[in-house]
Amino acid sequence: MISIDLLILAPVGSILALGFAFYLALSILKMDEGTEKMKEIAQAVRVGARAYLKRQYLGVSMFFVIVFFILLAMALKNYLVIFVPFAFLTGGIFSGLSGFIGMSIATQSSNRTAQAASKSLNSGLRVAFSSGAVMGLTVVGLGLLDLSIWYYFLNWYYSCHPIALGTDKIAAITSTMLCFGMGASSMALFARVGGGIFTKAADVGADLVGKIEAGIPEDDPRNPAVIADNVGDNVGDVAGMGADLYESYVGSIVATSALGVAAGLGVAGVTVPMVMAAVGVIASIIGTFFVKSGEQASQKVLLAALRKGVFTSSLLVAIISYFLVRATLGVGHLGVYWSVLAGLIAGVLIGLCTEYYTSSGFKPTRSIADASLTGPATVIIGGIAVGMMSTAIPVIIVCVAILISFYLSGGAANFNSGLYGIAISAVGMLSTLGITLATDAYGPVADNAGGNAEMAKLPPEVRKRTDALDALGNTTAATGKGFAIGSAALTALALIAAYKNQVMFFGKDINSNMMNPTVLAGLFLGGMLPFLFCSMTMRAVGRAAGKIVVEVRRQFKEIAGIMTGAAKPDYARCVTIATAAAQKEMIAPSLLAIAVPIGVGLLIGIDAVAGLLMGATVTGFVLAVMMANSGGAWDNAKKFVEEGHHGGKGSSAHQATVVGDTVGDPFKDTSGPSLNILIKLMSMVSIVFASFIIKNTLIK
Amino acid sequence: MISIDLLILAPVGSILALGFAFYLALSILKMDEGTEKMKEIAQAVRVGARAYLKRQYLGVSMFFVIVFFILLAMALKNYLVIFVPFAFLTGGIFSGLSGFIGMSIATQSSNRTAQAASKSLNSGLRVAFSSGAVMGLTVVGLGLLDLSIWYYFLNWYYSCHPIALGTDKIAAITSTMLCFGMGASSMALFARVGGGIFTKAADVGADLVGKIEAGIPEDDPRNPAVIADNVGDNVGDVAGMGADLYESYVGSIVATSALGVAAGLGVAGVTVPMVMAAVGVIASIIGTFFVKSGEQASQKVLLAALRKGVFTSSLLVAIISYFLVRATLGVGHLGVYWSVLAGLIAGVLIGLCTEYYTSSGFKPTRSIADASLTGPATVIIGGIAVGMMSTAIPVIIVCVAILISFYLSGGAANFNSGLYGIAISAVGMLSTLGITLATDAYGPVADNAGGNAEMAKLPPEVRKRTDALDALGNTTAATGKGFAIGSAALTALALIAAYKNQVMFFGKDINSNMMNPTVLAGLFLGGMLPFLFCSMTMRAVGRAAGKIVVEVRRQFKEIAGIMTGAAKPDYARCVTIATAAAQKEMIAPSLLAIAVPIGVGLLIGIDAVAGLLMGATVTGFVLAVMMANSGGAWDNAKKFVEEGHHGGKGSSAHQATVVGDTVGDPFKDTSGPSLNILIKLMSMVSIVFASFIIKNTLIK
Repeated sequence: MISIDLLILAPVGSILALGFAFYLALSILKMDEGTEKMKEIAQAVRVGARAYLKRQYLGVSMFFVIVFFILLAMALKNYLVIFVPFAFLTGGIFSGLSGFIGMSIATQSSNRTAQAASKSLNSGLRVAFSSGAVMGLTVVGLGLLDLSIWYYFLNWYYSCHPIALGTDKIAAITSTMLCFGMGASSMALFARVGGGIFTKAADVGADLVGKIEAGIPEDDPRNPAVIADNVGDNVGDVAGMGADLYESYVGSIVATSALGVAAGLGVAGVTVPMVMAAVGVIASIIGTFFVKSGEQASQKVLLAALRKGVFTSSLLVAIISYFLVRATLGVGHLGVYWSVLAGLIAGVLIGLCTEYYTSSGFKPTRSIADASLTGPATVIIGGIAVGMMSTAIPVIIVCVAILISFYLSGGAANFNSGLYGIAISAVGMLSTLGITLATDAYGPVADNAGGNAEMAKLPPEVRKRTDALDALGNTTAATGKGFAIGSAALTALALIAAYKNQVMFFGKDINSNMMNPTVLAGLFLGGMLPFLFCSMTMRAVGRAAGKIVVEVRRQFKEIAGIMTGAAKPDYARCVTIATAAAQKEMIAPSLLAIAVPIGVGLLIGIDAVAGLLMGATVTGFVLAVMMANSGGAWDNAKKFVEEGHHGGKGSSAHQATVVGDTVGDPFKDTSGPSLNILIKLMSMVSIVFASFIIKNTLIK
Repeated sequence: MISIDLLILAPVGSILALGFAFYLALSILKMDEGTEKMKEIAQAVRVGARAYLKRQYLGVSMFFVIVFFILLAMALKNYLVIFVPFAFLTGGIFSGLSGFIGMSIATQSSNRTAQAASKSLNSGLRVAFSSGAVMGLTVVGLGLLDLSIWYYFLNWYYSCHPIALGTDKIAAITSTMLCFGMGASSMALFARVGGGIFTKAADVGADLVGKIEAGIPEDDPRNPAVIADNVGDNVGDVAGMGADLYESYVGSIVATSALGVAAGLGVAGVTVPMVMAAVGVIASIIGTFFVKSGEQASQKVLLAALRKGVFTSSLLVAIISYFLVRATLGVGHLGVYWSVLAGLIAGVLIGLCTEYYTSSGFKPTRSIADASLTGPATVIIGGIAVGMMSTAIPVIIVCVAILISFYLSGGAANFNSGLYGIAISAVGMLSTLGITLATDAYGPVADNAGGNAEMAKLPPEVRKRTDALDALGNTTAATGKGFAIGSAALTALALIAAYKNQVMFFGKDINSNMMNPTVLAGLFLGGMLPFLFCSMTMRAVGRAAGKIVVEVRRQFKEIAGIMTGAAKPDYARCVTIATAAAQKEMIAPSLLAIAVPIGVGLLIGIDAVAGLLMGATVTGFVLAVMMANSGGAWDNAKKFVEEGHHGGKGSSAHQATVVGDTVGDPFKDTSGPSLNILIKLMSMVSIVFASFIIKNTLIK
């Protein structure tokens, strides 16, 4: 009974997270908003971001309504438990809500950060970091809330109603909860793909005409796309990233729960991931208090402060989990603890590895900067080579984590225990999400603060401080991206195992032998899909950016006095165009992710779907790492040259690195991160549609 | 006994191929060599190519000697049959020999093609195509010869000696023959990687300094790297491509034979692939007679002529195979015929698909050319997007081929029969190699003929004709690359199945369940390896090209009168530098391919190796298609702009496409094609070291 008692920590953790986030949000809103000009600019970004989200949620609602009725029809035909369509809705709504809250606070914080940075670097950091923490804690808080509500509701329901599909109450609960990840996944895909297209279309569009054609600096208020660019940081990097990790967070917990039941751990198998998440929340809140430094801190000291927060939280989770596993699963299952630890450490290591490959302090990015001396072609080749090279260590880390968590949690004796171990390592990695996401979501706020300072013509030392914050944000963003990809891969593996499980729940078994020709075909198709998906999202960015380019050129030509500052550009129009383009362009890649697993299942069977998911996870993971790191390295190589190396700003070397950075934009901010969701959503879709496919496939 | 009788066709086919190649070679050598200047240039290229091959073979010999003794030691410790080390040597020697012969004729043909092109387009085509045919027929002739010698020798040996490892004579034969593919694979890797690095280092180096810095046209005799560039076409595209396909050819036949025995087909299982190859030889020879046209033919007519040759050969194979399968395997196994047909058709379709994505006659390449209007960044994004998009159809084609050949050859009832079906579809695809390789190896000859015409200052209409031949060559090269990748994927799958088989031969079984954590780790590692390998080869090209750049700059600076044509550049030095760089740079990636499967096997067992091979095959295939097609599309987008679109030569749009083309060079000619070999060689290494790994692995 200790399990049931401990489970109450899940809603408690959720309320703590939301409460603390609320407290932080209030304290941010109380801060000085700065000059009228600063308020006005922040207002413009806020309005743009809201307009984007409103439009996006409107479009996505239609999708959710349609899928809701499809799922409802399937439930009425007994393909699904009746709760699944509703759980689908709540997953989507909570994910959307956390994106909305995080973004609202982020857009309130940019001018406040700029204003605080007028005082000192550390003050600026604290505002921006608090804003990130609101995002991080909202994501974990709402995630845990959704999970807790459903768990307690289903537990009550199945206690007083007959269980239709299974014989075991806890199995029925976890199998139902597993399906609700699809709501979060779908929302995440739209947020990542739509936000990613928006942000890069605006960015590339602003740069191509503003920087290259008109020769005005970045964040110049004369550029009509400058507000759209700032909006993009918020909808892409804040709302998109949040939805991505919300999904991993929720997905890894429900997958682990289902696998725990399969491993014969009963309620305890559910308790461990849920409570560990709650422990992580508390550890994250404690960790935020460690993020502080003296008023005159250097950038290095600030980074150390951020790291101190994350490491403290990780350490706390590492210690408490030991007692948690011991109390719930008993000494016999202490191996599960090592799985948790493997995940936790793997997450940190992948982050450090990402930093090595993308920071201009190390050799790989320097080599790209050096290549700028021989022109853009060698910059591109160098960046792709660095990105490809950078896949090796994260893959090895994940492999080691897989092997350790499988075998140490007893996989050799009980296969399902081993799978549970792999899944719980994902939960371990994500347990400190509250604070890791905070350090990540802080970046766009700092970036926007810089934009605000530039446009409001604050003194140069303020811009210098926000630039320092922004650079720090780039480092943490790179780490965050590595973390998001690594956790997505482990979550996807847990979901694939859960898929196999779910199929068994419906009385079938999956032959996941690779030599099986349908599995083989699935592997190839899955291995290809991330490439196709990236191609679609990159072309989407290109088309959307093209529209922005046309519009910016038009404004430069038609609005007289725009270049002298006498006339104001029509910022809103650029936002509207980017919004419309992103909404349109996100449809095809999203449908791909949903339609392919169903189509493959119906045509060549459930075994092929397993192959498909595995192929997509392997290639998707590697490709996502490559694209994120190539993009990050190009970005920082450009910044390195801008600092005065190889001729500095305006030199031909600089021009070459600008080409690299422009290519890297959709790599690192649209296509790469969207792959995280592709692999998770495909698994989710396969799980939800498992019984439908089993009954209707051509290959039985 | 009909099987044994038919088998004699294999040596007969071999001798026919070699005889016809000899006849063609003689007739080429009798042709007019052109002016003294032309002879002199051809001589320089020939000397450079010979010097490169000599140096390469010297280095590779050392590798072969070392591995020979390792294998010998393993054989003496009973890990291997005693013949394997010797078969390893013959595989390497025959592969090297076919590369040498093909390249010798190619370098003899460039000036003769230019001279013939002075008469007419068709005359030029016939010389260049004959040269390609010598290469194609030498490859298949020597391949079949090697196979026949070993088959008859082993058959005799095991008839009068006790069989050590197995109980069945034919199983002992095929299991031994399987191992000898490693010699061909190793040679192919060195040829592809070394040749690929050489050719692109020379090309990029020549372009960067010559075209961009000095502003002199392509193939200008004032460029010190121009001869190295021409040498590169021969060592990379002729010798490298030949070794690649030699390996696929031999590998698919031995893998099919081994799987045929596993499927219980006995000697007939060996007869079908060997004789089908012989049938393909004859069909290819007949096909070459269809490659002709009137003297005033347009380029379209010439392409049709080439196609006519290939299609005729394919049709002949399609018809004769039916009777062959019927006669050897009986009506009960007629399904195997459909597998052959599936492979044959898949090869043609992949070629056509490649053409669609890389030819400037179609939308994808046009879209890249359009992107040149917004600068190099959009050209790069567009090219990568096109390459990624282009992976979808070839993957679907291969999947359909896998499913058809597995099920129609009876895989549902007998799993091994199905695997035999997949393997024989690879043989079917490669059966017409004699002529498909001819249309492919013809390209570099045409390219060199253009260089010869330019440097010898032949009248512009000659250069125009060789340009037309070259453009045609680009089309057939793209088709050939698609074909090489597709056949490599199917061959690799056959080899993986044979690996599983070989392990069973040593009394173990492979658990190839994807959910098995070691298999999973293998899949991830394998999926990452092609990325790492590409990164290494791309950086190698970059470093080697850097050395050429320095040398060309030095010559421009130090040799007075080089730009006015008064002084001759030191061509040989560029060749020497590129040779040395290629030899040095090819070591690390090659060792990777050999060391990783052994290392993974020893550390995490034979199951992980299966995962590794599968992961590498899936990702390697997709990545190879992407890189080849991105590269091809960039190349043709540049040519399209050069034809006068979007501002034509010298415009900023042209500059942008030059960047794309430069990035594409290592994509399509070094890294991409080398992946074909990576996936095959890794399988071969796993097969040869299977018993060693089984006995010494940490995870039993």
